Amino acid sequence: MTYQLYYWTGLQGRGEFVRLCLEDARASYVDVARSEGDDVMMPFLRGEEDGALPFAPPFLKSGKLVIAQVANILHYLGPRHGLVPDGEPERLYAHQLQLTIADLVAEAHDTHHPVASGLYYEDQRDEAKRRAKDFRESRIPKFLGYFEKAIERGGGIHPLGQHSYVDLSLFQVMEGLRYAFPKAMAMHAWPRLDGLAKRVAERPNIAAYLASERRVAFNQMGIFRHYAELDG
Amino acid sequence: MTYQLYYWTGLQGRGEFVRLCLEDARASYVDVARSEGDDVMMPFLRGEEDGALPFAPPFLKSGKLVIAQVANILHYLGPRHGLVPDGEPERLYAHQLQLTIADLVAEAHDTHHPVASGLYYEDQRDEAKRRAKDFRESRIPKFLGYFEKAIERGGGIHPLGQHSYVDLSLFQVMEGLRYAFPKAMAMHAWPRLDGLAKRVAERPNIAAYLASERRVAFNQMGIFRHYAELDG
Repeated sequence: MTYQLYYWTGLQGRGEFVRLCLEDARASYVDVARSEGDDVMMPFLRGEEDGALPFAPPFLKSGKLVIAQVANILHYLGPRHGLVPDGEPERLYAHQLQLTIADLVAEAHDTHHPVASGLYYEDQRDEAKRRAKDFRESRIPKFLGYFEKAIERGGGIHPLGQHSYVDLSLFQVMEGLRYAFPKAMAMHAWPRLDGLAKRVAERPNIAAYLASERRVAFNQMGIFRHYAELDG
Repeated sequence: MTYQLYYWTGLQGRGEFVRLCLEDARASYVDVARSEGDDVMMPFLRGEEDGALPFAPPFLKSGKLVIAQVANILHYLGPRHGLVPDGEPERLYAHQLQLTIADLVAEAHDTHHPVASGLYYEDQRDEAKRRAKDFRESRIPKFLGYFEKAIERGGGIHPLGQHSYVDLSLFQVMEGLRYAFPKAMAMHAWPRLDGLAKRVAERPNIAAYLASERRVAFNQMGIFRHYAELDG
């Protein structure tokens, strides 16, 4: 079976967390908007297609199922591709960690759009500077410190004691934060997360993906954006 | 079995979405911090307790299981108390809707704290005014319009075609938004959501809860806060 992934073209964004999972699993999927254009998503968003009504991309089509919200998609894909441990407690915990990653991602977005997603960055730059300062000084340490502790608790290598979709997402978070906030990220050591990210990048399927044209580069349209003035 | 709910005392906050579910189900639970104080949560947050490591309250203890993140808790409780339909597609959809509610709740919070959770409202009032304007004019219509459409799609009464934890959370969202933004909310009709909220409030277990001392009133410490200058 081939999955259909629906996400905006031209950026990694939230879709990237799903792509990493599909690529790591070597699952068969089509990144639909990349071949057919972003308009292909509109009938879903307008409620003209069957199945669940998505609020926003990304959403995944798996047979007749339509699944939206990144963490929900990974919660669905994980067991199907051996990317989450067996057992209800482990799956709930994996999902909890993923939801905390989602919170971090939303806050990373709001560093450059603290007032309104619909306004240009330039129209909210002053607010962005204040929010980014707090993000660098309080939120990054709080979130990454938490994930360091979670990896520690999982035995030092993986938060869940084995490779999972959470590792793939933590890799993306570390890549994104290093792209957006290189100075701030260089001021702190995150040894567990760094080790995890390095191991994920070396996984054959992920290494092949990162070297491919399917991996869009970080840019100023995604979640993680680099503006020097937001990096302190 | 008795659940232990851990959440900050003195406010509804994110814990309220869990409480409404437990109350509607007439589940046996203890709101632990209310009897023992907020410090009782610290060993969990410091990683000194077994089980999943929570990033923040609320978290629920169910036997040995520790479950954090509101949507994750409801995803766990729903099937155990008949508060979500049977079937994987329905449960994924319920969870997706709940995650979209979580996004709305985070944005509602950020109307009064657009810069930093750690700063006083008064120190970010100017930014709050700008963010709240966008929230009232763009985000409330987008989110509530989406949920109206979801209810329509579910047959006009419930988004999932039957009562579920999503209805309970949508009730809380409507109550919270009406408390925080009475003027903005009065400018628009949300007939499906209003009907749903009214029916939830009339459910015997919910009506009893709302009339009890267990229901903390909305106040200026929770997610939904009323500041006249943010209501336009």
